[in-house]
Amino acid sequence: MERSRAERMISNAKDIDAIVIINDGEPFLDSTFWYLTELNGGSFEGSLAVVGKDGTLDVIVSTLEEETAMTGKGKVHVYRTREERDSLIRETLKGASKVGFNVHAASFSMVEHVRKTAKGIKVRNASQAVMSTLNVKDKKEIELTRKACRISSRVAGEIPNMLSEGVTEKEIAFRIDMRMRELGGTGNAFDTISAFGANSSKPHHSPTDYKIKKGDAALFDFGTKYDRYCSDMTRTVFLSRPPGILERAYEVVLEAQAAGIERYKDGMPAKEADTAAREVIDRSEFKGKFIHSFGHGIGMDVHQGISASPRSEHILKEGNIISAEPGIYIPGVGGIRIEDTCLITKDGCERLTDFDRRFTVV
Amino acid sequence: MERSRAERMISNAKDIDAIVIINDGEPFLDSTFWYLTELNGGSFEGSLAVVGKDGTLDVIVSTLEEETAMTGKGKVHVYRTREERDSLIRETLKGASKVGFNVHAASFSMVEHVRKTAKGIKVRNASQAVMSTLNVKDKKEIELTRKACRISSRVAGEIPNMLSEGVTEKEIAFRIDMRMRELGGTGNAFDTISAFGANSSKPHHSPTDYKIKKGDAALFDFGTKYDRYCSDMTRTVFLSRPPGILERAYEVVLEAQAAGIERYKDGMPAKEADTAAREVIDRSEFKGKFIHSFGHGIGMDVHQGISASPRSEHILKEGNIISAEPGIYIPGVGGIRIEDTCLITKDGCERLTDFDRRFTVV
Repeated sequence: MERSRAERMISNAKDIDAIVIINDGEPFLDSTFWYLTELNGGSFEGSLAVVGKDGTLDVIVSTLEEETAMTGKGKVHVYRTREERDSLIRETLKGASKVGFNVHAASFSMVEHVRKTAKGIKVRNASQAVMSTLNVKDKKEIELTRKACRISSRVAGEIPNMLSEGVTEKEIAFRIDMRMRELGGTGNAFDTISAFGANSSKPHHSPTDYKIKKGDAALFDFGTKYDRYCSDMTRTVFLSRPPGILERAYEVVLEAQAAGIERYKDGMPAKEADTAAREVIDRSEFKGKFIHSFGHGIGMDVHQGISASPRSEHILKEGNIISAEPGIYIPGVGGIRIEDTCLITKDGCERLTDFDRRFTVV
Repeated sequence: MERSRAERMISNAKDIDAIVIINDGEPFLDSTFWYLTELNGGSFEGSLAVVGKDGTLDVIVSTLEEETAMTGKGKVHVYRTREERDSLIRETLKGASKVGFNVHAASFSMVEHVRKTAKGIKVRNASQAVMSTLNVKDKKEIELTRKACRISSRVAGEIPNMLSEGVTEKEIAFRIDMRMRELGGTGNAFDTISAFGANSSKPHHSPTDYKIKKGDAALFDFGTKYDRYCSDMTRTVFLSRPPGILERAYEVVLEAQAAGIERYKDGMPAKEADTAAREVIDRSEFKGKFIHSFGHGIGMDVHQGISASPRSEHILKEGNIISAEPGIYIPGVGGIRIEDTCLITKDGCERLTDFDRRFTVV
């Protein structure tokens, strides 16, 4: 029989008696809670999931969430008051001494609360164990991500038809978001970036009322959720012929993405993909203009666990889902980014977002 | 001259030398960062805002966010590497001994990182100081919330026209979300709840493909952001005449909301609103069926700081924005909830979401 997610997670942890996943208030909710319970909906503020030494899963929820929780994995314990929750925390952690927490996704307050409530436990960092479990997607997870990616790829194909002189960044962001929902997406994976002209040189630009004009780059970074799983892709197109410098930058980014993706394969250090892409950019006239990492893990969170960066120590594994997104940013002129969501396979990688990447003038 | 937000925040803190607001990775971002900087956009993963003893504001951001950060409040410090960030943390916290953190909105990992980086500091809980600042909205914040509320109130008015036999929960949730964006909202304040028939008895139900049928309650809990500020409202309507029990429950909830809102006023304990509403429900045939709190604070986060619950110790203040949302939930039959976003004033409160609350059969 295949091991459960909880069993895999605890087996990835060394010298830890239990792993506690905790939600504080919205938005401080750990998606690992949904991963373990395999629930789809619910808010679950103040809920906990406890993975025991032998891979058991205890789920502590308020009466508000009882009905929903019962449809998921794990043994459900229901509390009505904070005192009852504290008792359940003590009960499920009974006998555990070294307790691991997902420290990047748990509030300081909640970790301290559990530490004080379950007297005598030692707080351990279990991020590694959690992440190495989450980073290797199972079939169901890949299928859901594939669906999310298919939706955003289709919307990418519609973008050229949305563009005409005078439309604003906000208008197009809105249309992209709506189309992703219409095609079955369950909500944005993140706030859509829609950046025209010089705004596209800011990697995290938020859409404004700026109206597109001829020669502008138009950069769109967007993704949808499908049953909690994210897609993430970026395309940059142009409203009529752009200045030569942007056209040249486009070709360099395209080449850099291909060079990086070439390194995406089970067993390869993720860092090498970043290096390969960065080398392409740095030997061009755009040296130093690629100011972020090549890739980040994608799952129920759009930035999850692994990265392909100059500092990454991750060795790629079959089942990793990771972005490939080189960019060139020229302040005052514009920016180019091309991004796909990639699934690492035994022999290489599959682009789950697979819409045309060729230089496109609308 | 009016005091800055940073000045007000530090003056609310007792025996603390500095307050550190930290963002981990998405979605573990503290909206307090945007409150202090008065920025609107940007992602700001890994950024910090440090409020000094005399109300100074230092903002530590990566090169990726430099351009955006420069448009906001505070002295901007830019880092390229983690080592540079660590130096900036040490520099801005120089001389500080007792350092406050917003412990519900900071990851355990980041607090520990700052503690180890700025050697010798003592970690203090500054949630109270942060929250008592955020809870009292200034004019600009009230205006933005008012706009968000106006948008959702208008959509509430359109809901009856969206309903007809056979439409699904998901379809209506989508139309609500789309209309809020079309009317100028910048994105959902939270995932819209659209729950028909027996599903409406689950307070945090996620929309499904369930098709509405005659006699069903249709509960919609939704809100939009407007320049980061949230609205939050719930209306329950019926597709043709519902069973008598739901009609009676509706009238009780309506009366409970009025009784609670009656207590919403500067200087009143928030708890009293909960008590007043709960008394109305508990003296009806629906005793014990109101299974959550009467209200929660609303700001850049849809659940923020204060609450009107049996345990609340908050004394209402002019400028608080808080929900008023009694409900009755009958498993297997349906649920009723009526919710408005309320602004506490000197003499009482103003409903910022103000669409018709009368019993409505479509």
